Amino acid sequence: MRTVKLTLSYDGAAYAGWQAQPGERTVQETLEGAVIKVTGQRTGTIASGRTDAGVHALGQVVAFRTESGLPADVLQRALNAELPHDIAVLKVVEAAGGFHPIRDAARKRYRYVLHDGPVRDVFKRAYCWHYNRGRLDAEAMDRAAKSLLGKHDFCSFQSSGSPRESTLRTVFDIGVERGRGAGDDCVTVEIEADGFLYNMVRAIVGTLVEVGRGAQPESWLPDVLQAADRSAAGPTAPPQGLFLVKVDYES
Amino acid sequence: MRTVKLTLSYDGAAYAGWQAQPGERTVQETLEGAVIKVTGQRTGTIASGRTDAGVHALGQVVAFRTESGLPADVLQRALNAELPHDIAVLKVVEAAGGFHPIRDAARKRYRYVLHDGPVRDVFKRAYCWHYNRGRLDAEAMDRAAKSLLGKHDFCSFQSSGSPRESTLRTVFDIGVERGRGAGDDCVTVEIEADGFLYNMVRAIVGTLVEVGRGAQPESWLPDVLQAADRSAAGPTAPPQGLFLVKVDYES
Repeated sequence: MRTVKLTLSYDGAAYAGWQAQPGERTVQETLEGAVIKVTGQRTGTIASGRTDAGVHALGQVVAFRTESGLPADVLQRALNAELPHDIAVLKVVEAAGGFHPIRDAARKRYRYVLHDGPVRDVFKRAYCWHYNRGRLDAEAMDRAAKSLLGKHDFCSFQSSGSPRESTLRTVFDIGVERGRGAGDDCVTVEIEADGFLYNMVRAIVGTLVEVGRGAQPESWLPDVLQAADRSAAGPTAPPQGLFLVKVDYES
Repeated sequence: MRTVKLTLSYDGAAYAGWQAQPGERTVQETLEGAVIKVTGQRTGTIASGRTDAGVHALGQVVAFRTESGLPADVLQRALNAELPHDIAVLKVVEAAGGFHPIRDAARKRYRYVLHDGPVRDVFKRAYCWHYNRGRLDAEAMDRAAKSLLGKHDFCSFQSSGSPRESTLRTVFDIGVERGRGAGDDCVTVEIEADGFLYNMVRAIVGTLVEVGRGAQPESWLPDVLQAADRSAAGPTAPPQGLFLVKVDYES
């Protein structure tokens, strides 16, 4: 038995999220189908975390154990040949036997893309939130976001349905930027932390948009944190703007 | 009766091209359906040129005549509300009564996007040609492309099926560039001319790729032009990498 670590990219538009569910087309089930075809063995896979329906990944990390002796590069090409075109294996490496993609994750980075031009961008419609009620103040959003840096109780930004034991998380990096190679009508939010609560990025983005549209002051974020109550924050931003960028492990 | 000029963007992936055809879902038929709903009148539309199945538009120009008195901005919002999310009206202006989007076009610009990384990009799969047989020499392609500048007989780059009276065309601008805000694995070809023959851009791209992969020298392009024979050029590049960028009219 060896443990294989995959870096996976997927367009979440056509999937009911990562996790296998009866009667739904999911990324996990699709990947496991490709693994059976390539290795001849039914094998469970574990991802660094679930992504919801419509959420994308640039660098999801997935591990599975297999008796297959196929070299990593052959495994990668064979999986890519079996997978549909909206899922791609970017990298395959051998991992230590005890490697666990959730427990061992040290940092995760997410990106959220907003488009605030008046007319929809047909090429970005599945990859952004089209906010069409006026231009957002990205600089105010960036200044407001900085108050989330560091270790805080983020329970105001946790959707119900998947509670965690502790709601303390450390945000290492957060920033909001207009443009960023994606056109002047695009606003990108990036967040890196030691872990995320359920829907945390989308709740943070929905809250920052309240600042960006002028409905709340920049100083609102610390109040929301302190309230420790989901109803104190803004709405949950829609899934299709969210990308899991990467997951870092202690080397 | 007034003449309305639309600038249209569409993702061609789900359409059998611009032109209405029995039994096919086309951009023209979809747009005309929206025009009926908004104006209450069945109205024929004319585009600056047909785009083939799978080809995209950033700035297609379309005209139609209507008795509707709706102001341009209201017409734009109403059409965008009726159109599916992969078609958007970017601009609506009044045109002179005699305006004809094909006959009056002075210049057209096309972009073709290639991705030559070893693994597919799941987010670009419908918007580029994934060339996965090695890295292309974009600089050699750019130098070779320059020999197409100016007025030439382009019949070597015309697919059969839609012959034009004259195959003389003037290329004002042509360039091949790696990167261009789209990542180091992307090669972009842009061409601006006074008009294009059927499949001309895709035949030029297929020919430049022969140079980029080292199968033909940079000096091959003048030979292909001079042969005046479609079989002298390279293959036709696939449709999904092609974008109609803009159409210019004499002001």
